[in-house]
Amino acid sequence: MQFGIGYHVINVVHANIDQRYSSFMPGSSDNKDARVSGSATTWSNRRASKQARLERIAGFMRGVYVDSSTMSEVLELLLQPGDRVALEGDNQKQADFLATTLAGLDPKKIHDLHMLISSVSLPTHLDLFERKLASLLDFAYSGPQSLRISQLIEDGVVRVGAVHTYVELYARMFVDLIPKVALLCAEQADEAGNLFTGPNTEDTPTIAEATAFSGGLVVVQVNERVARVPRVDIPADWVDVVVVSPDPYRVEPLFTRDPRHIGPIHILQAMMVIRGIYERHQVTSLNHGIGFNTAAIELLLPTYGEELGLRGTIARNWVLNPHPTLIPAIESGWVESVACFGGEPGMENYVANRPDIFFTGRDGSLRSNRVLAQLAGQYGVDLFIGSSLQIDADANSSTVTAGRLSGFGGAPNMGHDPHGRRHASPAWLSLLSGEGVGLRGRKLVVQVAETFQRGGEPTFVESLDALEVGRKANFPVPPVMIYGDDVTHVVTEEGIAHLWRAHSLADRRDALAAIAGVSPVGATGNAGTTERLRQDGLVSLPSDLGVDVRRADRRLLAAKTIEDLVAWSGGLYNPPARFRSW
Amino acid sequence: MQFGIGYHVINVVHANIDQRYSSFMPGSSDNKDARVSGSATTWSNRRASKQARLERIAGFMRGVYVDSSTMSEVLELLLQPGDRVALEGDNQKQADFLATTLAGLDPKKIHDLHMLISSVSLPTHLDLFERKLASLLDFAYSGPQSLRISQLIEDGVVRVGAVHTYVELYARMFVDLIPKVALLCAEQADEAGNLFTGPNTEDTPTIAEATAFSGGLVVVQVNERVARVPRVDIPADWVDVVVVSPDPYRVEPLFTRDPRHIGPIHILQAMMVIRGIYERHQVTSLNHGIGFNTAAIELLLPTYGEELGLRGTIARNWVLNPHPTLIPAIESGWVESVACFGGEPGMENYVANRPDIFFTGRDGSLRSNRVLAQLAGQYGVDLFIGSSLQIDADANSSTVTAGRLSGFGGAPNMGHDPHGRRHASPAWLSLLSGEGVGLRGRKLVVQVAETFQRGGEPTFVESLDALEVGRKANFPVPPVMIYGDDVTHVVTEEGIAHLWRAHSLADRRDALAAIAGVSPVGATGNAGTTERLRQDGLVSLPSDLGVDVRRADRRLLAAKTIEDLVAWSGGLYNPPARFRSW
Repeated sequence: MQFGIGYHVINVVHANIDQRYSSFMPGSSDNKDARVSGSATTWSNRRASKQARLERIAGFMRGVYVDSSTMSEVLELLLQPGDRVALEGDNQKQADFLATTLAGLDPKKIHDLHMLISSVSLPTHLDLFERKLASLLDFAYSGPQSLRISQLIEDGVVRVGAVHTYVELYARMFVDLIPKVALLCAEQADEAGNLFTGPNTEDTPTIAEATAFSGGLVVVQVNERVARVPRVDIPADWVDVVVVSPDPYRVEPLFTRDPRHIGPIHILQAMMVIRGIYERHQVTSLNHGIGFNTAAIELLLPTYGEELGLRGTIARNWVLNPHPTLIPAIESGWVESVACFGGEPGMENYVANRPDIFFTGRDGSLRSNRVLAQLAGQYGVDLFIGSSLQIDADANSSTVTAGRLSGFGGAPNMGHDPHGRRHASPAWLSLLSGEGVGLRGRKLVVQVAETFQRGGEPTFVESLDALEVGRKANFPVPPVMIYGDDVTHVVTEEGIAHLWRAHSLADRRDALAAIAGVSPVGATGNAGTTERLRQDGLVSLPSDLGVDVRRADRRLLAAKTIEDLVAWSGGLYNPPARFRSW
Repeated sequence: MQFGIGYHVINVVHANIDQRYSSFMPGSSDNKDARVSGSATTWSNRRASKQARLERIAGFMRGVYVDSSTMSEVLELLLQPGDRVALEGDNQKQADFLATTLAGLDPKKIHDLHMLISSVSLPTHLDLFERKLASLLDFAYSGPQSLRISQLIEDGVVRVGAVHTYVELYARMFVDLIPKVALLCAEQADEAGNLFTGPNTEDTPTIAEATAFSGGLVVVQVNERVARVPRVDIPADWVDVVVVSPDPYRVEPLFTRDPRHIGPIHILQAMMVIRGIYERHQVTSLNHGIGFNTAAIELLLPTYGEELGLRGTIARNWVLNPHPTLIPAIESGWVESVACFGGEPGMENYVANRPDIFFTGRDGSLRSNRVLAQLAGQYGVDLFIGSSLQIDADANSSTVTAGRLSGFGGAPNMGHDPHGRRHASPAWLSLLSGEGVGLRGRKLVVQVAETFQRGGEPTFVESLDALEVGRKANFPVPPVMIYGDDVTHVVTEEGIAHLWRAHSLADRRDALAAIAGVSPVGATGNAGTTERLRQDGLVSLPSDLGVDVRRADRRLLAAKTIEDLVAWSGGLYNPPARFRSW
């Protein structure tokens, strides 16, 4: 069309209202249909659609509740083909009753759903696609389903919108992936529908907010209906439908590492990290991944760390789930605060009894929050340390290995140097670089790895499997977990590569090769180069750090078994059955 | 101390419990005192301290309420010297009654407070320091107080912890800056203390969460006490004390730009941005700053953008406050969704009547949320565009100018390429670079500037004032708003520098110089270089973009006055008095 310059503004208004009925209107199907077919401009189609759907299930509602035996009928009436549905699907807790009910619906009636599932953890999540209820998937992580999801993508059963990190997926729920329906879970609801999440608040408030305030439908399975919830995590007026689930929602103890499996190499790496990174850079605020090597660091603080006189000067403020292996450090007075992404089964009672350390509610139990912990992990702490399955010569790393598309989870958000950070801290400033107005510090991003994985697979490889997996899945860019240029340190059983100190790409590669052992990457190193790199401070061997390799022994662990952790906790830690051996 | 290897773990437990009483214990003063002096291990000192403080004010409490006339006494009893106090202090709304009351307390009783104020907006915020109630300040923005704060820092009256962005400050509230007391504001509270924030939810839920779940005290001034709030933004069990303020809290219309002040240069820049950036890169999701040049873009979408047939293909999903200048684009069907950091006075009724576009509650009014909008702005959108007061030859920019320490606000969090992003989009992929596993897209970070500011000051300078201001304030690094290496495009009235396409620093500087006019930076450019840069696609002049300079005229604006905006809104927009001229 031609736009005539100089029209009076009111004419423009009318011209544009006319256009709205004759041309493409972006938006959800609800918006489009109603505006194009309606006879007057309407701006509340999302609300009207919600109202109509709620009316369809009115006969099943008793207040805000429906009976679990009617859930299939309710979901079939609430949903429409093509709906965008956020299913919780968190890292730990699962709205499994709602997922199973959804997967059992009639695909003739409900199909082409667009699923938002932050963590594709249950077989049911993929059954939705095999049963042709859903066709499009946006997700962040698929750990336990990584093999099957790869196959289903290759077979065209699952069409992927994008693989995100957790917070990216939530972010888009407020931008271009606004959910029409959210299927969530909580511990308890009261008569009005106020929700108590218990310690695993995780992602629920964020998904509920995106849905409730955009005219979407918030459906929640709860373990229990109570007269009064012990605390309100999500207010009733964000909630539309509550169902008491026949079984409690599933939650996985993903952050429990049995100290029994911590070996001398983990301990040696932990000693090097404590001396060569935490002590040297005065790291007070940090996030730990869930490997055995970071568990070893946690268990060495009250012993090795104490001996070095480091209590109070390093590792005070933590952002991480309630790792049982952190108990000895907490009990020894090392830990000032812990902000949690989620909870951890078995740690409920311990956490509730340590309110000076953990964020807890008036009811006494943990309040976690994945978005806020991610924010804290990205912008509020000085160090991220994690481990990886594959690292290339440039220190790019990935947990995606042949045939397994595991997604990203939360590591990339914390495992990079946030260019939006503006406050300084001693640790951040210890990596100062640049000049003039470009002078700035840097976040410490540490990767710990053994040169070989179990089964003899080398960790350091010439080419990440991610390259091939991404190509097969038709991804526009390879699924890299942590980019090498964000990594400041790599730690192996051989030593530490201080990559941030390298002035050239060649030095950087040499430093990494020097600690990569006899792997394809390490084979390129040689003794003369390593000597030069040590002198330049780009590589530290244990002896350079004052670390006595002979002491890298399980006797140095503050706890050697789960039973020891229970003892440290004064009996407050109650490990899940699978971790009990006594 | 020496740690004996081989101790049985239970001995270690006891050894460590002993240590806790004899050596440095990190933590707040509350924690330290109680643990060192107590006779048994206590882990709930924060709760005990809270309980003791609440008991001190019990006589003043009527349920959760105190009378405003007793607020001075209540605050004096609640607070202790050295407390860390989060005072709201947002970008827009202000807990001004609590701020004023606090500033009037007796500095002999209450002193050395550590203030966390995201936006130091009111004179009262600095009175706290001049009156010696507070000594340490962590903040994010100080726009209206930027001159005075500079002076007070130089005089040693204000000691600065750090200057943050908004989300960094919130992040640290969960790590190492956990508030002891939060002084907040809301529209309404019910009898139990459930809070309704109205459209300006902003930062309140986040500060409340950090404080309430760490055994801190949440004190809220409300405009009104009601039997039932229209919606619950913050549950009562996160709230300790509510006071009905004698006057409604102050809120500023910071995002209202009167179209009357939009001139031909803004319009020319807007035309170039629409053609040379939004159209070329298929930018569908975006954040706009608050300059007149971005307001011009908003007002050109329904005219120039429509003419180009771009409706539905660009600028659909927005993260920004309810800018009145966005009304014509919304009414013309350009806008699919808007997620808001805060509200905007005068826009309440309009927003409430456009629930398909804005996030609104069951009560009908806007739900904003600064943290979630920042998350959306960082990870969920493809483009950030803002303007700056000073830009150097490397495209570093700052709003800090001589004598004025204005802080960062939220721009750096959105105005950088987030390395933690993993999902792709057409716009992000259009800036693809790297190879192999390093192949990745990039966020568009655009700076719009006229080569000269009002008063004839050049925008492009050899050295940012930030360098000198930072040095004077003893900051460890200069206060740069947007780093040049994050900037993909700079737009002036001369043309666009496509910095992301430059392969060398020299090319990058030349491209910027080519559009920097006769400023100190621009003077280094020459016609031959510009011609080469145009051919290489590093610089576009209006003619290269098909932009007809002669049409850069106010007649192209969809609204030329605030009155026009009211007309577009069908009378729903109700501008604040200062913007009314009829």
